[in-house]
Amino acid sequence: MFPEYDVIVVGAGHAGCEAAAAAANMGSKVLLVTMNMQTIAQMSCNPAMGGIAKGQIVREIDALGGYSGIVSDKSMIQFRMLNKSKGPGMWSPRTQNDRMLFAATWREMLEATSNVDFWQDMVKELIVSRGTIQGVVTGMGQEIRAKSVVLTNGTFLNGVIHIGEKQFGGGRIGEKGASGITEQLVELGFESARLKTGTPPRIDGRSLDYTKMEKQEGDEEIVGFSYLPVERIKPQEQRACWITYTSQEVHDILKTGFEQSPMYQGRIKGSGPRYCPSIEDKINRFADRDRHQLFVEPEGWNTVEIYVNGFSTSLPEDVQYKALKMVPGFENCRFFRPGYAIEYDYFPPTQLKFTLETKEIRNLFFAGQINGTTGYEEAACQGLMAGINAHRNAHEQEPFVLQRSDAYIGVLIDDLINKGTDEPYRMFTSRAEFRTLLRQDNADMRLTPMSYEMGLASEERMELVRKKMDEVEQIKKTLADFSVEPAAANEYLSSKDSSPLVERSRALKLLLRPNIDLKELCAEIPELKAAIGDVHIHSLEQAEIQAKYDVYIEKERELVKKMASLEDLMIPDSFNYDKLTALSMEARQKLNKIRPNTLGQASRISGVNPSDVQILMVYMGR
Amino acid sequence: MFPEYDVIVVGAGHAGCEAAAAAANMGSKVLLVTMNMQTIAQMSCNPAMGGIAKGQIVREIDALGGYSGIVSDKSMIQFRMLNKSKGPGMWSPRTQNDRMLFAATWREMLEATSNVDFWQDMVKELIVSRGTIQGVVTGMGQEIRAKSVVLTNGTFLNGVIHIGEKQFGGGRIGEKGASGITEQLVELGFESARLKTGTPPRIDGRSLDYTKMEKQEGDEEIVGFSYLPVERIKPQEQRACWITYTSQEVHDILKTGFEQSPMYQGRIKGSGPRYCPSIEDKINRFADRDRHQLFVEPEGWNTVEIYVNGFSTSLPEDVQYKALKMVPGFENCRFFRPGYAIEYDYFPPTQLKFTLETKEIRNLFFAGQINGTTGYEEAACQGLMAGINAHRNAHEQEPFVLQRSDAYIGVLIDDLINKGTDEPYRMFTSRAEFRTLLRQDNADMRLTPMSYEMGLASEERMELVRKKMDEVEQIKKTLADFSVEPAAANEYLSSKDSSPLVERSRALKLLLRPNIDLKELCAEIPELKAAIGDVHIHSLEQAEIQAKYDVYIEKERELVKKMASLEDLMIPDSFNYDKLTALSMEARQKLNKIRPNTLGQASRISGVNPSDVQILMVYMGR
Repeated sequence: MFPEYDVIVVGAGHAGCEAAAAAANMGSKVLLVTMNMQTIAQMSCNPAMGGIAKGQIVREIDALGGYSGIVSDKSMIQFRMLNKSKGPGMWSPRTQNDRMLFAATWREMLEATSNVDFWQDMVKELIVSRGTIQGVVTGMGQEIRAKSVVLTNGTFLNGVIHIGEKQFGGGRIGEKGASGITEQLVELGFESARLKTGTPPRIDGRSLDYTKMEKQEGDEEIVGFSYLPVERIKPQEQRACWITYTSQEVHDILKTGFEQSPMYQGRIKGSGPRYCPSIEDKINRFADRDRHQLFVEPEGWNTVEIYVNGFSTSLPEDVQYKALKMVPGFENCRFFRPGYAIEYDYFPPTQLKFTLETKEIRNLFFAGQINGTTGYEEAACQGLMAGINAHRNAHEQEPFVLQRSDAYIGVLIDDLINKGTDEPYRMFTSRAEFRTLLRQDNADMRLTPMSYEMGLASEERMELVRKKMDEVEQIKKTLADFSVEPAAANEYLSSKDSSPLVERSRALKLLLRPNIDLKELCAEIPELKAAIGDVHIHSLEQAEIQAKYDVYIEKERELVKKMASLEDLMIPDSFNYDKLTALSMEARQKLNKIRPNTLGQASRISGVNPSDVQILMVYMGR
Repeated sequence: MFPEYDVIVVGAGHAGCEAAAAAANMGSKVLLVTMNMQTIAQMSCNPAMGGIAKGQIVREIDALGGYSGIVSDKSMIQFRMLNKSKGPGMWSPRTQNDRMLFAATWREMLEATSNVDFWQDMVKELIVSRGTIQGVVTGMGQEIRAKSVVLTNGTFLNGVIHIGEKQFGGGRIGEKGASGITEQLVELGFESARLKTGTPPRIDGRSLDYTKMEKQEGDEEIVGFSYLPVERIKPQEQRACWITYTSQEVHDILKTGFEQSPMYQGRIKGSGPRYCPSIEDKINRFADRDRHQLFVEPEGWNTVEIYVNGFSTSLPEDVQYKALKMVPGFENCRFFRPGYAIEYDYFPPTQLKFTLETKEIRNLFFAGQINGTTGYEEAACQGLMAGINAHRNAHEQEPFVLQRSDAYIGVLIDDLINKGTDEPYRMFTSRAEFRTLLRQDNADMRLTPMSYEMGLASEERMELVRKKMDEVEQIKKTLADFSVEPAAANEYLSSKDSSPLVERSRALKLLLRPNIDLKELCAEIPELKAAIGDVHIHSLEQAEIQAKYDVYIEKERELVKKMASLEDLMIPDSFNYDKLTALSMEARQKLNKIRPNTLGQASRISGVNPSDVQILMVYMGR
């Protein structure tokens, strides 16, 4: 009853949905297998997309033709561009989303993607023959064949939920876990390990006193994620979030539950996310801090449910409750469900190629939490890349890999594969050495041409990028040519505490001054505006950023070139590290385990020092 | 962390949602416990509400102040008044609904109901002390106290799903079942048994060829369920349904799976719904019929998912697939998931009082499939009645019971309690002996005053009914008084094949003629329209029905009175049936088991014949 598919995607979370959409849009016949068709694209954790470094990833996904940006834009209830006071490399878009609308929009978009079929069941087994994936076996015993398979099992693989001293199986609270896959993969030679993550209690918003919290409104301008013209809400329609704080009193109550905590008792073996810790972890690790911020997020347009970001916990539920009631605004709070921790299987990602294909089994791909990451955006971008490469494998095409200098997505996958991870991996701007290049405003210019080239990004999308590139060049040229008269600019300059012009100056030169804004300058000098002409706001911003930050951008481009020369030095597959006794023991072990393709890759393996790299270079005749 | 609640409702399907809303709106502090807050008010089976006899129930729920009518109206994608060609007692409203919107609207309405709290967990145990319910224990081990508890566990109690020779535990496919409750209730003295129900495969609508099916459009006028002014879609926005048929060929293929069928193999012990049988049951029971109708229902505005009403099956999925592909329009169909049967525990409802409180445990109520019924509407109305009585028990008020002459709801509960059921009970118009009284157009006039009286129906709702009643009386008076001139009416009458007037006639008399329609008459005779004045369309229809069917209505009113006199004859609790050896053996057994309160109730017990009733009457001194 099933055709032979090109690609089967197992799991319909952020990773699975992107994988299915990408492979299908490139022309693969795709089957998306999910345990429950009613829970496609659930936001299991907080109702928001993007944020610092993550917002850049969503824009990159969009630039490549993925759907996360469009879905987030269509379901947003608030938009903020974070870090706007810092350099443009730090600007990070974030949406608050309606949880139900987000899921419904994803499902609608997938259903509107011809080539994506759906099947509701668990996958309990993989069909593998001579080191190559052949398909999957479902819980009902169906055998479904495909050329490539993408596993995106999230927290469902042998998921165990912990609350205080209680524990029970489940993939999310109220949902069944999945078993069988880990055991089979281990038998096939994979290494698996445990991770944990957690989530805060969900609260009845009707029970909160918002007058005791700080209000955080959305931006006055809604930029959004997608480079396509998506219909978005109006700024005045946005919902507010709220900020409140824990206190010493709250911490003292939480500590009374530590003895029953699954973490302290050692019942949870897996590591938790270092940068998204539970409240009990925070109290422990930052014992000197007498308060932690809580970010109170509405779950949607029409629901009273509230997400208490920052209060993730697996302490006994009565301790959670007593403690949260001491938080300003939460004095009378009612729970919908307690916070909990969940432990699940993952496969250390050093077992993968850069395409996210496993080294062990041909045409089998892993994406998302199964690779040890945390975060919707991290999962989604892996799904997209796995979907692309699953399609390309199925059609015997070359792999598609992004470099660290191409995208945050490149950084993420390179980190995973070279360094592995033994705690849930989350993206930060600090992980990207080229973050001045990898900006949220230029992801389309960086990535859409590559994606269009291989048949994923649409003609419409490519045309928008072409137009933007042309406009940017034209604006930059106009700025370099246009002479500003002192009389035309000096009033504006003085209002910005900028010294007045004594003679004519190029517009470009003015723009390099701090505080000087191109939009304002155009408003001040109608002749400049006229010279620039009728251009898209994004082109104007892009030209301004390129003009203002030209020096930094150029410096990073140089660095990329230097690093690339190391990348050109291929290390043969058969390279025998054991012979190089000059290498440190750790370097030898890591190199043997990871077997990097290039000297550049070798240089980024944690434990491989610059001296080790030099030894390798010498040995390779450089 | 929990207050003491007045009412805890376990389960958030149609029954649970109505129970929670009703108790809360009457003033009870209510906790709604559900295994998953994302799946509140799921339509587990087909995406439609109402239909024959069921549509009347939805209107009754609405008239009493329940929410099902409003939710259905707000989420409809199509409306039809069924049986419009028959007498008004048979008219039955039905909506096709957007499955996701239906659930979302229910959740929104519940969240907007102050007094309803939510808790996400399973209930694994009841707290009972000295024959009285005290509260529940959740899966996480929470003890939550309440004065009354309503169980609405649906198909989740020890649910077992069957597809061909496979079986696995679950409350619905993809969702966990619930265990513990049955075992405890049996220990407490309850009798439990098994029922089964089934559901058809879900289909990818993109794979169907609708040109080979008959189109069924919605009505040109959307009446809706709720008597309140709810915002509804416009007629031209409606979605179509489709009709197609099985064939001998389809049946032959299905028969190849009979050997592996869980029904024929005897793996399923529970009885299935006689009037909503699986396709294999239909083939078996109606062997002479060479085709069965399939009703193809869209699942919503923006989804391609399709429900194949009439093709419920638990045959092996490849047999389902091969057979369905032979149905016109389904040649290339793709499945989202196969059909399946589900077996679950229920408690024969003869163990209940008329309030739906259990006889065994005080303040414990059962509603919905746990009582052996099938259907959303049957479940919802029981939930409403259980919610009302749970509230009234919690506040030491008198029970609220509807008679068979009051409502279909009264018929349903009376049937359940007097006759019990050993197969899933579904409502039909034929079950109601007073169906000319129990019309969909007058549920508000029948029930809203009672509900308003006890504090459930709102002032707004009551005011609408008062106005309608006044207008109806006024219109009827006008019709009786108004003289129609032959010249004014004869053209219209001849167009209706009705003999011309030779002298003036009262409008009322004209209306009694077949084919004569009050709205048309008003359009024809402006003076009549003016005399009636500006009235609500519902009042006009109501007056017309009352006028046209006056004889039948009066006859049924007489019958109600006669039956009521039997109801007045109370049978003492201590009555000793064993002494009445003149009673048939079966009557004695049934009477002993059910212990009816009145002679009327005794007369409706299956197995108690009129002669038995006469013996009882004689013995009681009549």
